[in-house]
Amino acid sequence: MLIKRLVSSFVPSSGFSSSGGPRILKTGDILRQTRTFSELDVLEYAKVSYDSNPLHFDSKCAQNAGFEAQLVHGMLVAALFPRIISSHFPGAIYVSQSLNFKLPVYIGDEIVSEVQATNIKESKKRYVTKFATKCFKNGGVLVIDGEAMAVLPTLAVEEASM
Amino acid sequence: MLIKRLVSSFVPSSGFSSSGGPRILKTGDILRQTRTFSELDVLEYAKVSYDSNPLHFDSKCAQNAGFEAQLVHGMLVAALFPRIISSHFPGAIYVSQSLNFKLPVYIGDEIVSEVQATNIKESKKRYVTKFATKCFKNGGVLVIDGEAMAVLPTLAVEEASM
Repeated sequence: MLIKRLVSSFVPSSGFSSSGGPRILKTGDILRQTRTFSELDVLEYAKVSYDSNPLHFDSKCAQNAGFEAQLVHGMLVAALFPRIISSHFPGAIYVSQSLNFKLPVYIGDEIVSEVQATNIKESKKRYVTKFATKCFKNGGVLVIDGEAMAVLPTLAVEEASM
Repeated sequence: MLIKRLVSSFVPSSGFSSSGGPRILKTGDILRQTRTFSELDVLEYAKVSYDSNPLHFDSKCAQNAGFEAQLVHGMLVAALFPRIISSHFPGAIYVSQSLNFKLPVYIGDEIVSEVQATNIKESKKRYVTKFATKCFKNGGVLVIDGEAMAVLPTLAVEEASM
């Protein structure tokens, strides 16, 4: 069973010189986390979501549908987006998410998930922030594409808890 | 701890007279399931998604953000949509989903989730189907709104496995 911890990174939109203070999210900044889903992850997700589509458990069913092997649930992979946002901005409120599932994610695929701030609006001391949300595998092949909107309590970027 | 099983129903778009054969999905048909999320569901979802946003665990944090109590993860509630589709059409391939989180879902809220077929196109003996996807609470208050697209292996509606 392959179990891999999340790896997290922050990519500022422009040259970033640390002044010792907190990093402040700006338009263009990218927050990125990497995760590899295991068979156990798929099983545990199926238990809590009650989604036991045979595509996730039956390799013959998956192959008959044109895939190489059982798929990781798309919504489990997409859960990386709110996870990245809430781990850097605890208390963030999720407003919307669009998801286009472009290619299959298999057990064992290393998935790089990123959210890039594309618009930030202050409203009542909170920050309504739009993100481009993408997942890649195999070093850059797009598997999920979409957009999210979240209300952040602050623009100070916390170190992600792993 | 409140644990409630899923309740499932099929609402045909027009008067439906059973001929003893399988029900065939038509534009306008609604598939509906009801679920109440428990504290354990939220905990188990947080474990598998790694999303431990304090809004889901810390009632003070949730109240400071303007909510009554801890929230159920929106993506866990939204997982009802692919769950409904795959339970009636095993082997369905999810293509896209849009989600607008309109109101909070709390632990113990009875959530009625429905998908309504709005467009069905046959392509290579599979059925590219668009669904309006909605979740309600309190007998009809919209909490999640969106659209999904899935490729169904058949239009024959299976009894949902619970």
